[in-house]
Amino acid sequence: MTLASKNVTWFDGYLTRDEREALHGHKGAVVWFTGLSASGKSTIAHYLERMLYERKCTTYSFDGDNVRHGLCRDLGFSPEDRKENIRRIGEMVRLFVDGGIIAITAFISPYRADREVVRKLVGDDRFFEIYVECPVEVCAKRDPKGLYQRAMAGVIKEFTGVSAPYEAPENPSLVIHSAAVTPVEAAEEVMEILNRAGIISR
Amino acid sequence: MTLASKNVTWFDGYLTRDEREALHGHKGAVVWFTGLSASGKSTIAHYLERMLYERKCTTYSFDGDNVRHGLCRDLGFSPEDRKENIRRIGEMVRLFVDGGIIAITAFISPYRADREVVRKLVGDDRFFEIYVECPVEVCAKRDPKGLYQRAMAGVIKEFTGVSAPYEAPENPSLVIHSAAVTPVEAAEEVMEILNRAGIISR
Repeated sequence: MTLASKNVTWFDGYLTRDEREALHGHKGAVVWFTGLSASGKSTIAHYLERMLYERKCTTYSFDGDNVRHGLCRDLGFSPEDRKENIRRIGEMVRLFVDGGIIAITAFISPYRADREVVRKLVGDDRFFEIYVECPVEVCAKRDPKGLYQRAMAGVIKEFTGVSAPYEAPENPSLVIHSAAVTPVEAAEEVMEILNRAGIISR
Repeated sequence: MTLASKNVTWFDGYLTRDEREALHGHKGAVVWFTGLSASGKSTIAHYLERMLYERKCTTYSFDGDNVRHGLCRDLGFSPEDRKENIRRIGEMVRLFVDGGIIAITAFISPYRADREVVRKLVGDDRFFEIYVECPVEVCAKRDPKGLYQRAMAGVIKEFTGVSAPYEAPENPSLVIHSAAVTPVEAAEEVMEILNRAGIISR
């Protein structure tokens, strides 16, 4: 078939999500980890991404390091700025999902309403809210970056779990009690969720 | 090999760009079309995306429809807002490139300095600036959405090419004279550029 003869079917605008998903062999989705700082979100996300990679899934992972210093570097940590931060991330992951990609996010994202904004943007069937539950005392004891110490000393203001609220999900896809399971076990549970929802197939 | 035995090599954080590129079989890059409204940017982008899809490349396309109404919906068309618009798009496409994806953008992006911001963010070797050159008279005659008519009547303010400046690229990867070539020919030229740069291989 020559290029010219294909033009009729070609020119329907950009590729559709279905076409991209057919190429990737899985569906686009967002795996949205939420929980306190040091609850284990990023670590579980790392393992999940590796497991998906072994199944040749196209993924991308977002966390504070690649978003807070880039797209959202003009934003602080007030409730308004947190809201705009999550909104922008939501708009961005929506495009990844539209691209047939599994987007993995690891943000504290403390407000229920903000997470619901993302769910609505992405679509309920493509949004997997994973609550990484861990007692604040355990998180504060781990404190890999010394953030809790500085928050409790008042050096860091509006720190979730210490001086700013965390609103736990009411109906998450999965609750991980990270003080009780290993990151690998947690990631395996997420894989099972994605499998049952038809996002990936084993 | 059991999961446990793989953990040592696994836990290096998120996947690297190299790993993602190995999965996709091509490199991540940005193909940044710039030019006047109705110069043909989106049409060429459509064809380019289809050609890349046939080669099983993972791509994503950005234009006003999926960005201006989403990530950048709080922004207008003043020079400051245009600058912030392009900055956010730049930060976003940087993540797509990091994800080993070929990001295709079709924005007027009239300011040279703003485009250079994106080039710096993404890296010179991954940024392909494609200037879709077309005389403003031809664009105004095409005027598929009646924008030029309204701009010339003063209904739309700060319209590029009419009441706002367009700064042509000084050293683009490619200049397409869209009044003189077909969109398919133009897209083929871009494919050749990507091939020569080692982003894709035929």
